[in-house]
Amino acid sequence: MDKALIDQFSSIVGHKNALTTDDFIAPYLREERGLFIGDSSLVLRPSSTQQISEIMKLAFNTKTAIVPQGGNTGLVGAQLPDQSGKHVILSLERLNAIRSIDVEGNMALVEAGVILKKLQIKVEEQDRYFPLSLGSEGSCQIGGNLSSNAGGTSVLAYGNSRELCLGLEVVLADGRILDDLRFVKKDNSGYDLKDLFIGAEGTLGIITAAVMKIFPKPKGKAVAYVGLKSPYKALELFVHAQKKLGSLLTGFELMAKIGMQMSLAYASNIRPPLKNDHEWYVLIDLSSTKSEDEAKHALEEFLNEALEEDIIENAVLAQSLNQQKIFWQLREDMSPAQKKFGGSIKHDISVPIASIPDFIVEAENIVQELSPGARTVCFGHMGDGNLHYNISQPVKSDRQAFLNLWEDMNHRIHTLVMRYHGAFSAEHGIGQLKRDELKAFKSPVALDLMRGIKKLFDPYNIMNPGKIL
Amino acid sequence: MDKALIDQFSSIVGHKNALTTDDFIAPYLREERGLFIGDSSLVLRPSSTQQISEIMKLAFNTKTAIVPQGGNTGLVGAQLPDQSGKHVILSLERLNAIRSIDVEGNMALVEAGVILKKLQIKVEEQDRYFPLSLGSEGSCQIGGNLSSNAGGTSVLAYGNSRELCLGLEVVLADGRILDDLRFVKKDNSGYDLKDLFIGAEGTLGIITAAVMKIFPKPKGKAVAYVGLKSPYKALELFVHAQKKLGSLLTGFELMAKIGMQMSLAYASNIRPPLKNDHEWYVLIDLSSTKSEDEAKHALEEFLNEALEEDIIENAVLAQSLNQQKIFWQLREDMSPAQKKFGGSIKHDISVPIASIPDFIVEAENIVQELSPGARTVCFGHMGDGNLHYNISQPVKSDRQAFLNLWEDMNHRIHTLVMRYHGAFSAEHGIGQLKRDELKAFKSPVALDLMRGIKKLFDPYNIMNPGKIL
Repeated sequence: MDKALIDQFSSIVGHKNALTTDDFIAPYLREERGLFIGDSSLVLRPSSTQQISEIMKLAFNTKTAIVPQGGNTGLVGAQLPDQSGKHVILSLERLNAIRSIDVEGNMALVEAGVILKKLQIKVEEQDRYFPLSLGSEGSCQIGGNLSSNAGGTSVLAYGNSRELCLGLEVVLADGRILDDLRFVKKDNSGYDLKDLFIGAEGTLGIITAAVMKIFPKPKGKAVAYVGLKSPYKALELFVHAQKKLGSLLTGFELMAKIGMQMSLAYASNIRPPLKNDHEWYVLIDLSSTKSEDEAKHALEEFLNEALEEDIIENAVLAQSLNQQKIFWQLREDMSPAQKKFGGSIKHDISVPIASIPDFIVEAENIVQELSPGARTVCFGHMGDGNLHYNISQPVKSDRQAFLNLWEDMNHRIHTLVMRYHGAFSAEHGIGQLKRDELKAFKSPVALDLMRGIKKLFDPYNIMNPGKIL
Repeated sequence: MDKALIDQFSSIVGHKNALTTDDFIAPYLREERGLFIGDSSLVLRPSSTQQISEIMKLAFNTKTAIVPQGGNTGLVGAQLPDQSGKHVILSLERLNAIRSIDVEGNMALVEAGVILKKLQIKVEEQDRYFPLSLGSEGSCQIGGNLSSNAGGTSVLAYGNSRELCLGLEVVLADGRILDDLRFVKKDNSGYDLKDLFIGAEGTLGIITAAVMKIFPKPKGKAVAYVGLKSPYKALELFVHAQKKLGSLLTGFELMAKIGMQMSLAYASNIRPPLKNDHEWYVLIDLSSTKSEDEAKHALEEFLNEALEEDIIENAVLAQSLNQQKIFWQLREDMSPAQKKFGGSIKHDISVPIASIPDFIVEAENIVQELSPGARTVCFGHMGDGNLHYNISQPVKSDRQAFLNLWEDMNHRIHTLVMRYHGAFSAEHGIGQLKRDELKAFKSPVALDLMRGIKKLFDPYNIMNPGKIL
């Protein structure tokens, strides 16, 4: 990058907040797993929307590519520059004020760089609840959550990031500021611009602030592990749960036996929640706005009925807050736990809930055809139709030979997903990882519209180029 | 319109379904109130997405303007042609199949012309619940509901039409079919096209089918009328209700005394729900997925507490399903009831819930300044921040002189709304009615993006021209 241009950009944020040496830049160039590594000569750390507007004006005039970055926890490489070294990284980390919390109106106005966990805590201090929750919540940021339309563990009851957002402030490619910070649920005054930016992974503009919904704090929870025979039984259980537990039901997670075993091996100090092994496990999470007792009694009654009706084989209710945490931990540790068992080919998919059991049967045939003995670690947010369908290499097989199947495996599994009218990226997005899959599976009409929108919003392709499209 | 062109269009749908005589066309040219009256030489009644695709191809090639029309119940003139006689009306009424209902997955795949009430009934037959509900549900259609992002009485618990929709099928201006019929809640594969078409009032494409969420059927309801002193008390009550009733709370409607009086005068056979008059009324609606008893007991307990804490002056619980209906009818009859009291200047606005009381005080000053003695009939979905802020003419004043204030009044009230970061069209849309207000109040940046999107999707301006932009 041109030295004079670097100086121009730097002067907007002050030289202290323009990182130009390798040491300082390094952490912004790779994500935790090292799957994506980019290069860059400049990281800008603006502290205001106005500064971001000035940065984009300069970028627009000089046709400089800008890569917005939040907490750098994304799993598809959307937050990282390419290896040309010509992209400027724009970190949102200093734009991190919670501008206001409206307790009566149940809204919070937050800047993009606010860390999710911090928002959860600040809202809880006001006796309210911000439901977005995911593994990386200690470091991911609201702007990134919105740009990737993050899902997580509370989508069943509260929706994705998209559903939690009422309004946005966005800096466009040419530096103009779109003030769409609406504080109302109902606004039918023209096209829905907000939802174009949500999930666009920074390719249409930079989200700088957002109005997020908050909720009355649940009074108590109940969490149980259930052992059952098959995904068919899990579906039966889910349909019952929706009907009988209604809005108490806030989580319904599925896990294959091997997943439970891996999690238990990973967290060596945790005892198996159930005495005997079961082919499949379901974690059920209930929240009551009334009392912990309501949640517990409802879950107990529900599970007793399910036992009597032979839908489930066994169940155990968490007996303390600590045990509730452990139950969830066994589910959330799945990804790190799986690492210890060799190479893993991953899928982040959704299929219609009623098709999940059939899908699992058919997908397993594909897996075994491509890699006999491979271990399917199928787990995820069954209540949302979202599975993290990950395949660990066969025991004692060659890691690289297995990982070489990645594209084939993805493509075969995604083809099956699309036959079920599902999604080949449920919650992680496209980024760099799934651009080819997008081309292969998205309808040409949709792709054409998307390209048109990209060109309209970003005529010089300076907004996070090389991502999504 | 050119006779040959009419023939070409007609041959696509068959001549029986191409209406060309004044008698047959007349019902498609005006809406119930006669506020908007258009002209046209041709109404097409296609029965398939394919036919609509062919119609649009011909329209695109001949630059013929097409006006999609659903149940013709819209309140802003979006569904009507202009008076040039050159616009072709495309009625969705024959595209009216419910293609499938997925009871386990809680989804319904419906065509655009399905009447809302029919979908409610068909879903209920499967022991499920489709929550969208509004005054015109007996004749409005799903396609129109989506194109106007209809709200109604169950938004508080279930969201607008937008939130109820998982996927769409859309015919574009050039006749291409966008198949975005997703059957999953989570799909982060590229830009959110669906939400651009929802609320676009047919100006970006024609919605032909949609995947809609359905829900477990509530087991019972409880409905109460509450009398209280002021909107400040109503806000206090609402904050309490959200906290204490949680997800049981499915409706919270506000009504000024004069609104209740007008409704009672309109429905002469209904007795006042409360013995004495109160300055303001709130209708509270609870739904339980467990039992009617749960809803009733929760509401009783809640109202007793509110009485003790002096938040409310009095309250009465509906004692039967019939009485529940009557309680709702008093609220829903507000619009027709108001007609008997002379001219009325209307607003469909939303303001942040916590600001509603202050807004009502300030807005009343504006009303009295512009028209001393005018009667403010303020009512609406307070739980959504959405008020139908209607002004009836002063008693014995000149109707036309009062109605001449329409634009001034709107503009003053909408200016106040925008100061509160609210919306000058909460649920009815822009159509023909509020195009000037859109220009006046929408940010120039948003307007510019909207115009760009319109041009991209509809380069010849043939999709419902003259609406929104």
